[in-house]
Amino acid sequence: MTDVGALADGVRAGDRRSLARAITLVESARGDHVREAQVLLSSLMDSTGTAHRVGVSGTPGVGKSTFIEALGMHLIGAGKRVAVLAIDPTSPRTGGSLLGDKTRMQALAAHADAFIRPSPSGLHLGGVARKTREAMLLCEAAGFDAVIIETVGVGQSEGAVRDMVDTFALLLQPGSGDELQGVKRGVLELCDVIVVNKADGELLAAAKRARLEYERGMHLLRPQDPARVLIASALDGTGVPEAWEELVAHRAQLADSGALGERRAEQAERWLWDVVEDELKRRFLARDGVKSALDLTLASVRKGTLSATAGALQLLDDGPGA
Amino acid sequence: MTDVGALADGVRAGDRRSLARAITLVESARGDHVREAQVLLSSLMDSTGTAHRVGVSGTPGVGKSTFIEALGMHLIGAGKRVAVLAIDPTSPRTGGSLLGDKTRMQALAAHADAFIRPSPSGLHLGGVARKTREAMLLCEAAGFDAVIIETVGVGQSEGAVRDMVDTFALLLQPGSGDELQGVKRGVLELCDVIVVNKADGELLAAAKRARLEYERGMHLLRPQDPARVLIASALDGTGVPEAWEELVAHRAQLADSGALGERRAEQAERWLWDVVEDELKRRFLARDGVKSALDLTLASVRKGTLSATAGALQLLDDGPGA
Repeated sequence: MTDVGALADGVRAGDRRSLARAITLVESARGDHVREAQVLLSSLMDSTGTAHRVGVSGTPGVGKSTFIEALGMHLIGAGKRVAVLAIDPTSPRTGGSLLGDKTRMQALAAHADAFIRPSPSGLHLGGVARKTREAMLLCEAAGFDAVIIETVGVGQSEGAVRDMVDTFALLLQPGSGDELQGVKRGVLELCDVIVVNKADGELLAAAKRARLEYERGMHLLRPQDPARVLIASALDGTGVPEAWEELVAHRAQLADSGALGERRAEQAERWLWDVVEDELKRRFLARDGVKSALDLTLASVRKGTLSATAGALQLLDDGPGA
Repeated sequence: MTDVGALADGVRAGDRRSLARAITLVESARGDHVREAQVLLSSLMDSTGTAHRVGVSGTPGVGKSTFIEALGMHLIGAGKRVAVLAIDPTSPRTGGSLLGDKTRMQALAAHADAFIRPSPSGLHLGGVARKTREAMLLCEAAGFDAVIIETVGVGQSEGAVRDMVDTFALLLQPGSGDELQGVKRGVLELCDVIVVNKADGELLAAAKRARLEYERGMHLLRPQDPARVLIASALDGTGVPEAWEELVAHRAQLADSGALGERRAEQAERWLWDVVEDELKRRFLARDGVKSALDLTLASVRKGTLSATAGALQLLDDGPGA
């Protein structure tokens, strides 16, 4: 059994080991852990909500880790404490490109004012998002000033990240508009700030051209609220302070207009419904009657011999737990 | 009590009154109607799946009704039977711009080979989509060769339409790229064919320019699978046969590659999960304990004093029906 009170004290004191243990507790699927995690979170809620929550997305190879490390070190240099969490529904611990990988952010990982945590694994996106949201709250309770949520720009995860951050930044490659093809549909419409990374050496000119192209694309796509487009080099640090200033300016604008409070309230409400829907579906799928009937029902529905509604109602009503 | 067998026979015979009654039955929320509707649908499933399912989206004022009427009359001229259904989650019967409005498609509405039905009302999007999918199946069982699903391009409904059609067409205005601002984020990425309408008279030159601009925007947005961009005048009929040919070509390509069967199987499976999730949530919200606790829980979660997960689990576990 976990001493939840002591763990909460450790988190509140900013102790990184306590924070790591608290996140592990939150990530656990064990029944007693789930209950303890909720007690822990509940006791810490009054210490949450203070950080700048930033999402950073981009396709593999764009230099996300390098950029986040440069950004994190810049923040630490300015006296801030930085947490980096990752969302990767594609099983990050087995895939090639690790998100939130400490070995790829060595300077940041070694620093006392930083905390880095890879994506929870073995869950579908809804589960990953839920665990990451709770880890974010724990980081806030531990006094981190900025929580950076890292994700890839090729899946469904950007929507989930959008739903938990104040400001969403998209990293892009120097290169022509064709580079956009790797970016998940819709991500361009979710982001608040675009950073063209690798604006150094031979690629500097290309990065500047890309910036203009992306600005034009933005104007076509979102003429009323185009995301700002910046260039930066995570490698030599150029443009990183400016990128941070832009993120801060975006959040300040939200805060000044009152939109930040409203956005967070809406996010929290959406989180609640996400958990409700997730749990309802999990409990439904765990029913004996559903388990045994599902394959056959799905096959008939896919073939078009059984209507989707009839199939759904059969599953809902015929199970013993219905 | 409905004579479901007789109603099914009427639908299968292509009788429009029977079809209208069947759709009304499917749209009803009354418990006995819901059961009868499922019996009806089940008995008709073997007659479904044959139509070309086409989605048509576009912002108000783009000429959707005129275009659909021109397209429908073209199809009827070619010996086809055409059904037009509408999806409008924003309560179409009270709004200004009615979708699937017979008075705006008078020639089509009067024709024996056409069937027009406005959006079911008084439901959230999930409910509207479910009823429309079932109405679409009924139209297929009634022998319609093409089912056109009309929706506005400014909401969440395009995703729902995308999930039920073979081919998704977007109508746009002549004019600059700025016109895109009225188009719902993401719709440009969902469509298979773009038609710049109103390519007649004074607007012909603007429509041709718009076509080039949209083609360029498409190339930026979807370099690997840009939607074809056409011009047409729903008013004088120019380009309408070509638009239909393009829709047919798109579907033929899907069919030839085997993608059509797979798309429809996936759509049907998603429909099933939509109904399951919808029903689970509906039943959850109907529980006494949930009803009484919801407002207070939501307020605490929105304020940030209660974690979303804790709030959700309280609602899930504390109710008497848990």
